[in-house]
Formats: sequence, C-alpha cells, structure tokens
Amino acid sequence: MGNTSYFSLRTAMVSRIGREVELSPVELGSQTAKRVEINLASGSPDPRVMPVKEIKEAYDYVLEEFGPKALFYPGAGGQEVLVKEAWNYADFLGVKRRAGDSLVITSGAQHGIELLSLYFLDGNGKIAVENPTFVETFQPMKLLSSVVFPVSLDSRGIRVDELEFVARLTKLDFVYVIPNCHNPAGVNLAEERKKELVELASKYDFYVIEDDPYRTIACGLGEPIKNYDREGRVIYVSTFSKVLAPGLRVGFFIANEEIAHKVSLMEQMDFSTSTVNQYVVARLLQQRVPQDRRGGLYEHYGRKMRVLMDELRDRGLTDFNEPKCGFFLLLDSHKSSRRVFEEAVKRSVSVVDAKPFFLRGGETMLRLSVAVENEERIKEGVRRLREAVEAA
Amino acid sequence: MGNTSYFSLRTAMVSRIGREVELSPVELGSQTAKRVEINLASGSPDPRVMPVKEIKEAYDYVLEEFGPKALFYPGAGGQEVLVKEAWNYADFLGVKRRAGDSLVITSGAQHGIELLSLYFLDGNGKIAVENPTFVETFQPMKLLSSVVFPVSLDSRGIRVDELEFVARLTKLDFVYVIPNCHNPAGVNLAEERKKELVELASKYDFYVIEDDPYRTIACGLGEPIKNYDREGRVIYVSTFSKVLAPGLRVGFFIANEEIAHKVSLMEQMDFSTSTVNQYVVARLLQQRVPQDRRGGLYEHYGRKMRVLMDELRDRGLTDFNEPKCGFFLLLDSHKSSRRVFEEAVKRSVSVVDAKPFFLRGGETMLRLSVAVENEERIKEGVRRLREAVEAA
Repeated sequence: MGNTSYFSLRTAMVSRIGREVELSPVELGSQTAKRVEINLASGSPDPRVMPVKEIKEAYDYVLEEFGPKALFYPGAGGQEVLVKEAWNYADFLGVKRRAGDSLVITSGAQHGIELLSLYFLDGNGKIAVENPTFVETFQPMKLLSSVVFPVSLDSRGIRVDELEFVARLTKLDFVYVIPNCHNPAGVNLAEERKKELVELASKYDFYVIEDDPYRTIACGLGEPIKNYDREGRVIYVSTFSKVLAPGLRVGFFIANEEIAHKVSLMEQMDFSTSTVNQYVVARLLQQRVPQDRRGGLYEHYGRKMRVLMDELRDRGLTDFNEPKCGFFLLLDSHKSSRRVFEEAVKRSVSVVDAKPFFLRGGETMLRLSVAVENEERIKEGVRRLREAVEAA
Repeated sequence: MGNTSYFSLRTAMVSRIGREVELSPVELGSQTAKRVEINLASGSPDPRVMPVKEIKEAYDYVLEEFGPKALFYPGAGGQEVLVKEAWNYADFLGVKRRAGDSLVITSGAQHGIELLSLYFLDGNGKIAVENPTFVETFQPMKLLSSVVFPVSLDSRGIRVDELEFVARLTKLDFVYVIPNCHNPAGVNLAEERKKELVELASKYDFYVIEDDPYRTIACGLGEPIKNYDREGRVIYVSTFSKVLAPGLRVGFFIANEEIAHKVSLMEQMDFSTSTVNQYVVARLLQQRVPQDRRGGLYEHYGRKMRVLMDELRDRGLTDFNEPKCGFFLLLDSHKSSRRVFEEAVKRSVSVVDAKPFFLRGGETMLRLSVAVENEERIKEGVRRLREAVEAA
C-alpha cells in the first residue's frame, strides 16, 4: 500500500480558497522567530506580563463551580454570562451601545472577521482596505471577494478623501479599518476622519468593519468609529488576546441585530469557541482583570516602543511613523524588505517583511514589534537590524 | 440616536450563507431542552461521566509547566505535541496511517468539516450525503454546494448501489458518511460496503469524508473506511468531544498531505483552536485518559440504550433500527414529527424533530438521545413520549 503515490489521483476540484490560500508572512515570521535569538516579529503579547496565575485560578474556579456545565457544547453566539460581561467591558472601553445592537462571542477577532467575510462576501464582493492592512485578517476577505481597493494610509489613518473617490466609482460591500495602534503601520485614525468615514458609509451605502484589538491595552484614544454611527453600519470587533492571552481564543463583535443574529447562526457551522474558555474570560472580567491591566500594559508596551524608536533613530533608521500605542512600528528600510529579512535572520533576529501587507508598494517596508522582547534585547535587535539593512 | 431605525438601511448585499443560514433543529432542541424536565434531545455527553477532575488537573499541570507558552497564538495545523499524541490515539482507534498522510488539529469535528467544505466547495460543488444525515455538519456543506444528492440509508448503512447510480450520472466532489453509531439513524456501516465505497471513490474520482466521532466511545467496530483506501481519497474526521468534553473544542482529521497542508493553511483564516486546550488534551492523552475511558463509556451508553429500546417496545413504539453504539435512536412515530415534538414539550420532555435530517421523507421521524439522562428518566421520558405520540 505504501507504494501507491498520490500522483495517481486525478486533479480534484477544489474551491478558490483551497487553491489560493497560502502561508501568511506573519506565520512565516513566527516560525522563523522560533529559530532566532531576538524576536522583533511576533504579535503575541509579552509572556512576562501575561496573567498566567489569574488564568490558572479562573480555570480552577470555573471547573470547581460549574463542572460539566462549563464543558458542554458552546451553542451559537456565546455563553450568556460572557455576553453580559463583554457588554460591560465594551462599556468600559467606551464603545457606545445603540438600540438594536447585539454582541456575539467569537474565537478571537480573527474568527469574527472570517465570519463577517463569509457573511458579506461569496466570491463576488467589493471591499476597500487600508494600504497597508493586516495580512492575516485580510486573508479571508481577499479569498472571498472579487475586487479589493487599497486606500492610502497616512499618519492620521485612512485617507477618507481617497476612499470617497473609490466609493463614488463602485458599490462597496464594506471597508475594513484598524483605527488604533494600526497593524502594521502603528498610526491612529484622526477623530474628524472617523466622522467623515461614517458619513461616507451612509452616503454610499457600505458597512465599516472596525477592528480595534489594541484599545484593550491603550489609553487616551479617541472615540470608536462606531460611536459616530447612527444607522448600524459599523461593526465593532474586539478580542481578549492582547489584554489576557491569545491562546484562550475568545473575542467578540458588536453589530446591528440583523448581522449579529445571522453571524451567530453561522457559528453553528464551526462551533469553535471553547465553552470553558468563555467561562474563564467571564470570570476574569467579573474580577476586573482585563480592566485593571489596561493602564499598566499601555505603560509597559509604550516604554518598549520608546526604546525601539530611540534606538532606531540612534542607528540612523529614521523613516517611520511614531506609534502612539500597540506593538508595531512600520519602518521604511529603503532596501528590499525581502533581503533585509534574510540578512536579519542571518544575524539571528526576526522581523516581518511587510511587503505582503501592501496591495500597492511597500517593497522596502518592515514591521517591527515590541511585543515579546525586553528593552535590552530590543536595542540589540535594532543594532543587528542596522547591519542587516546595510548588508541588504 | 435611539430613534433611528434599521429600516433606514438599504438592503445590504450579503452572501448566500448570510441569506440562507438558519437555526438548526439540534440547536432548537438544545434550547428547548433547557426548559423541560427530561432531555432526550441533546448530543452532549453525560455530565455524570465527564472527567471534570482530570480536565481540571490537566489545566493546572499545563499552566504550571508551560505557562505563557500554552497561552500564545495557536498557529495553523495544531500544536506539535498534540499532533504527535493524536497520531498515537488514531493508532489506538485502529486508524491505519498511510505514507503521505497528515493530521490536522481542529476546533472539534464540526470545525474540521466546515474547513473541508470550504476547501472543496465554493458554491458550485456536487456532493452526496446519507439520507438522513447529521443536520449540523451538513449545514456548511449545504450552504457551500450547488447540488446535494441524498443516498438511502438502511440498517447496514449507506446504500452503495444507490450511490453508484448517482456517481455514474454526475461528477461528485465528495460523499459525506457517518459510518458508526450514525447520527441520527444509529446504524453502523457494513464492512463489505466500506470496501465498495472506496472502490466507487476510485472508479468515479470523488473523495469520502468519514465522520467517526463515536468510535472514541465504542468497541467492537469494524475497520475505518479509511483503512481500505489506497489512494488518499478518504478523509478521517474525529473529535475528543464525546470521550472527554465538547466544551474543549478539540478534534482532528487525517487526510493526504495536499489536503491536510491546504486546510491547515486555511486555519489562518479563523485561528480558532485554543492553544491551552490543545495542551490539555495532549496531557490527557499522555495520561491515557481517553484511551482508558473507551470501554466504560461504551458500557455506560449501551446500558442506557438498552433501557430506551426496551421501554419503547414495552410502550408499543417499535419502529426503529437497533443502535449498536452511540447516543441516538431514530424512531418512526407514524405521526407528524413536528406535532409529536410539540406534544412532547407540553409534557416537559424534549426530543429532536428529525425531519430536517432528511432530504427526502422523514416526516414522522424523531431522534431520541440517551446521552444525558439516567435510566429512570429515560423510562419516564418514553412514557411521556408515548402520550405525546397518541396526542399528536
């Protein structure tokens, strides 16, 4: 039997997703990061500040208190107790609740965005995204849409004037925006642009998917785009991955009731969100763990970001937007990002080649992360990166 | 703001999935089950035999031993340690490993089947399923295919002669089969039909998705269909939901390397399988918890099934196939299944109206489950069901 080769299989019909799906550069970066000394690639939160003890206690509590009930099938839409606590948390984050809004629990923001892509698109939709955008959340949108319009990003976020130009020419299904601590660009969306964006959505009849994972670990941000929305056009997506731990795979989104209802039914297709993990996150919210961590994490990552920026400038790598929050800084290396990536790996430092985050341009861009390394290692990483840029 | 109605929204374009998704009768049954005294509806394993203590200890161990590492992003395809243990477990289950086979960790079997549906189908595929089939796993297939052929099921499983009739007429993408302890029909697929099925797959160039969740809690079964496959045409899907707990959301499938590779990349679209839960299941496998539970669970559910069958016969409800294993028995009530369901709820007992499991017929069929109730309550449930049938 072992001799039979797969070459004997005639070519199967597979879907466009099956044909076109590919390894994301972030996954490549993560895999590379495991083999190098210094990891400036990963978007996983800093293990040193992960609340492992609190999470462990929460599992103990939940399994002791609820037993089998916490281990049944999750059902669609989320556990009642977590939906309630997540609403309180959204309120804490400053997300305004409109009449008719519903909240749906997901297996992290990525899962929420996959479901929303499946809801809006079936291979022939038209969407707009920031240029650059986050390549992982973009993957389901790309694979399920027919036309993607890249809209420029500057230091104040998405260029709404450019978006209007697109919206005037074609009927968009939705616009995907990361308004705060942008991944990979590090920028925040300016307040007046949020208002303009919502006005455009109304005028040209499209939805806005607002992906806002970093609000959970940032302070001093403006309003969510959603707060300007009076028509149920903005879908607010969040996660507990940054403030608690990504390995729990728990997040949520808030949308008008029609979308929320349909997408929660779509969760019957995968039933992927662990019941016990939902109980654990609910418990941690009741104990105010995510709420109490916000300010400290903002400081923690902000400090590391300042070290990164200072070191980059000291080393003559000065072409970047100054991030106000989050993990990421987008550096223009003025060299081929692919070659810099390879030279960096030779020096045992991993960064993410940011070219695939761009639908246009980006050939010299690198995404640097302050998420997992400490200050000393960030400095050393930049020193090696400088050499890599020179060698590239 | 609260006055603005959603009626002001123009009709958005949504995908076929977004339009057509609906509440499954199993979800309806589960929701109903929460409001009644006796639950003969649920497919969740018996809480009385769920290994809550072992699961709790495994979380303690994993978070103590691995800390943040168990809480990072899961990556695509599954944690290495679990992939290794799941292979050993597949071997324990009697699943033969072919050269070129790969194993992919999923968020339960449902998630695996959703991903496989997305891999093979994009709205225009042709598939065949058993009539009846499991309505929940069927949902993604239905929403992503263009033509579904129902193939009759008898007491020896899918009618392979009927399947050949279909395969001769049209090019199928895949056939979806639940070979053991069928949900909802309770039957097992006969050994010679497995061989014939694999021969048909080769002759007519289609894949077979073998959904085999109950093998984990059943003994004395024949070979997996996959063991007859020499060409990599059978995809074997399993889960830890029945033998451990569904709330962990961990399962796996085994396929040829091309399919396994592509589908594991597709997991980048949702990243839904909790990292810590993967470590927990790996730990429980190392401790042989699922392996050691198999025989006892087979006995446990078998005993309850015999009580159900005896009581049904005593009450004159005799029209069913005798299940050899699993949770489910399919009863022909000879009355409208919808009306019997309603009459049963009036008597505070929940069953599942099995009509939606059928693509043809099934108007008088009920799915009864022995999963969660004890023997006394099963008897009482049947007593009330008898009244419901009479009243319907």
